[in-house]
Amino acid sequence: MNAFSSTLLKKIKSKNATIAIAGMGYVGMPLAGALAKAGFKKIIGIDIDQKRVDQLNSGISLIPALPKSSLNKMIKNGFYATTDFLNLQVADALIICVPTPLTESKEPDLTYIQSTLTLSIPHLKPGVLISLESTTYPGTTEELVAPQLVSGGFSIGVDIFLGYAPEREDPGNEVFQTQDIPRVLAGMTPICLRLMSALYGSFISTIHPVSSPRAAELTKLLENIQRSVNIGLMNEMKIIADKMGLNIFEVIDAASTKPFGFTPYYPGPGIGGHCIPIDPFYLTWKAKMYGVHTRFIELAGEINESMVDYVVSKSILKLNEQGIAISKSKILILGLSYKKDVGDLRESPNIKILNSLINLGAKVNYSDPFFKTIPSMRKFKLHLSSMSLTPGNLKKHDLVLILTDHSSFDLKLICKHSVSIIDTRGSIPLSQKVTYA
Amino acid sequence: MNAFSSTLLKKIKSKNATIAIAGMGYVGMPLAGALAKAGFKKIIGIDIDQKRVDQLNSGISLIPALPKSSLNKMIKNGFYATTDFLNLQVADALIICVPTPLTESKEPDLTYIQSTLTLSIPHLKPGVLISLESTTYPGTTEELVAPQLVSGGFSIGVDIFLGYAPEREDPGNEVFQTQDIPRVLAGMTPICLRLMSALYGSFISTIHPVSSPRAAELTKLLENIQRSVNIGLMNEMKIIADKMGLNIFEVIDAASTKPFGFTPYYPGPGIGGHCIPIDPFYLTWKAKMYGVHTRFIELAGEINESMVDYVVSKSILKLNEQGIAISKSKILILGLSYKKDVGDLRESPNIKILNSLINLGAKVNYSDPFFKTIPSMRKFKLHLSSMSLTPGNLKKHDLVLILTDHSSFDLKLICKHSVSIIDTRGSIPLSQKVTYA
Repeated sequence: MNAFSSTLLKKIKSKNATIAIAGMGYVGMPLAGALAKAGFKKIIGIDIDQKRVDQLNSGISLIPALPKSSLNKMIKNGFYATTDFLNLQVADALIICVPTPLTESKEPDLTYIQSTLTLSIPHLKPGVLISLESTTYPGTTEELVAPQLVSGGFSIGVDIFLGYAPEREDPGNEVFQTQDIPRVLAGMTPICLRLMSALYGSFISTIHPVSSPRAAELTKLLENIQRSVNIGLMNEMKIIADKMGLNIFEVIDAASTKPFGFTPYYPGPGIGGHCIPIDPFYLTWKAKMYGVHTRFIELAGEINESMVDYVVSKSILKLNEQGIAISKSKILILGLSYKKDVGDLRESPNIKILNSLINLGAKVNYSDPFFKTIPSMRKFKLHLSSMSLTPGNLKKHDLVLILTDHSSFDLKLICKHSVSIIDTRGSIPLSQKVTYA
Repeated sequence: MNAFSSTLLKKIKSKNATIAIAGMGYVGMPLAGALAKAGFKKIIGIDIDQKRVDQLNSGISLIPALPKSSLNKMIKNGFYATTDFLNLQVADALIICVPTPLTESKEPDLTYIQSTLTLSIPHLKPGVLISLESTTYPGTTEELVAPQLVSGGFSIGVDIFLGYAPEREDPGNEVFQTQDIPRVLAGMTPICLRLMSALYGSFISTIHPVSSPRAAELTKLLENIQRSVNIGLMNEMKIIADKMGLNIFEVIDAASTKPFGFTPYYPGPGIGGHCIPIDPFYLTWKAKMYGVHTRFIELAGEINESMVDYVVSKSILKLNEQGIAISKSKILILGLSYKKDVGDLRESPNIKILNSLINLGAKVNYSDPFFKTIPSMRKFKLHLSSMSLTPGNLKKHDLVLILTDHSSFDLKLICKHSVSIIDTRGSIPLSQKVTYA
């Protein structure tokens, strides 16, 4: 321990430390909330999006995990959001929660991390703790973040402390909030680890230190890889069961009665969100540098991505049974979000299906309580409004396509009034009307 | 319901039914025990192995789940074992628990089921219930068992009743016994299902009927497919982690701290036992008839099977670091069983590793409390005796290879006195001596 680290340790313990968070999105917002709940008052939210900054400063949170009342209390206690990295001059710790997307060719895009560092470094004070929470490949903290800090004139473990603590946010999870989810973390040096443990231990119930940032980086990837592979497996099993005239949802439910050794995962129209479709390929990319291949990840990616075409094909076949060409059909899509009861369109395969059906000439409507209209997206511009689920609206479509089974959907009503249904979630009981896809 | 089915239903309800079990192995023995516990007295165990029949009749059980005291009580109440199918003349139900192995070319070998039926049919009385418990491909009950019974002059649902209820035995599981494990089942006709439900409901706490025998057949396969695929994934991740200088066991343990969405599976020297390495390929074979491929199953099979060579290669490299050629080396293998704390060599990859090391010229010893000597196997004849784990015995080997981490192994002793260790189970703390493989 040196003077910097002991000063910081004291500030953390007394909750007097000023904590800056770079990236006030799905990860940064609940993190700020958890810090505030634990008693930290000096919290600064940094984001490059002026609109989001303005919303936060006027008490508007964008996620249910940080309700308006909590945000207003935080503001009263001193929290503020800003686009200006100059505010880092007073920060004792900087937690980086920026996105790590993939490029079109499925390579890691670390520009958000790099530009955050570039903008931060000139304003960081000596003795600051930097914690990276973004999901990334093993080696990022050591090979990318540390060198950039060193180039900025800092010495890791001496006048700057660096660690990695992967976020485990699960949007829509009402059982576990940020502070209840055990946190894996690591430090570049023993002192870095001590400070990381002190910081995260002060607002999260359980911390789990590992031997290196790389081990922590791989841990986060493994969690999402397992999910991607198991969903991929169930999607493949869905296709096989369908060929055999069996209902995969019935089979999964039956297998789930085994009290050990089986964990249910469900097939669907593909995977979405900012984690499962993306994170595994971070390892794929890095593994190649070591001459090894991530075959399970690639197979899962291939099968999961093919679900969009599978659902479209099933829709075409279902309409064909009714004697209707898809170009002459009216289709109602239920659910745009990638996940039940969450208003999140990121990487949603549903949008791809919707777009594909439109391209085939279908007249498509949708219903989703979370989206009155479809926000403009990078790849898609769709000018549609959510349709209310009335008997009349259901009846006037040739096909109702259940892509996400939001709890608010009245399944009985849907069953009763739809002419024909494709169900990708196994939510409707088997009948002549229904095809599972 | 007809006269046959109502008579049988009454006999089951009063536990007066005579239940014959064909195949008194890992499945048939605990099943007999569970029936006896529920109050059935007239239980007949049929097996083609005269030695096993003699053992059972003299009160010797071969599995811990059916202790000697229970077996002796059963015998006093009327249980007996026999090789003679003539005894089926008095059976009200026949439960088939024979093995379903794979041929060398990984095709289903259903000869045990078929010969059991051939030997049984001439002696079955009208109104008997036939339940198949063997793991098999979707369609077996309908396409193979039913036609054979019909050829024998029976009419399904009229004078013979047929169902499928896949066994879920987990050798060594001390928490769940046969009667506590919910049972998935199906019948060929509604009356068949009613009788199946009555029978299994009378000795198993929870039954879960599904819509067809094929759905039940796929259910059992799905359970084992998921396990095979997840172990395969962890074996691939082990190789990748190793290339990156990371310890996969540390990473899995860290990921396991996530309270949702992650289920730990562990890598190892390959998979063994009579289920996981075999059952998935039943689906692979059948799926091809429908023009679909089971890519996850095949990838998992390939990776899991390659673990034998991986562990052998790691052993060669570890010895090389010590300057010792494998042909000049002395290796001590710990654990022969495929699974911890179970005395079961079926499909054990450990035997393949042992054999491979011997073929490379190593002098190999082993230690396994469950096997004083290695029983003669179809493919391997190995004349070795288990070595006690003393400091002297550990020291005199160049390499100690932990293949199965039986609880009785003294890990501290092993750590202290071994010259060099390869650990395939992550049971030894990291040190210079240890390499994980």
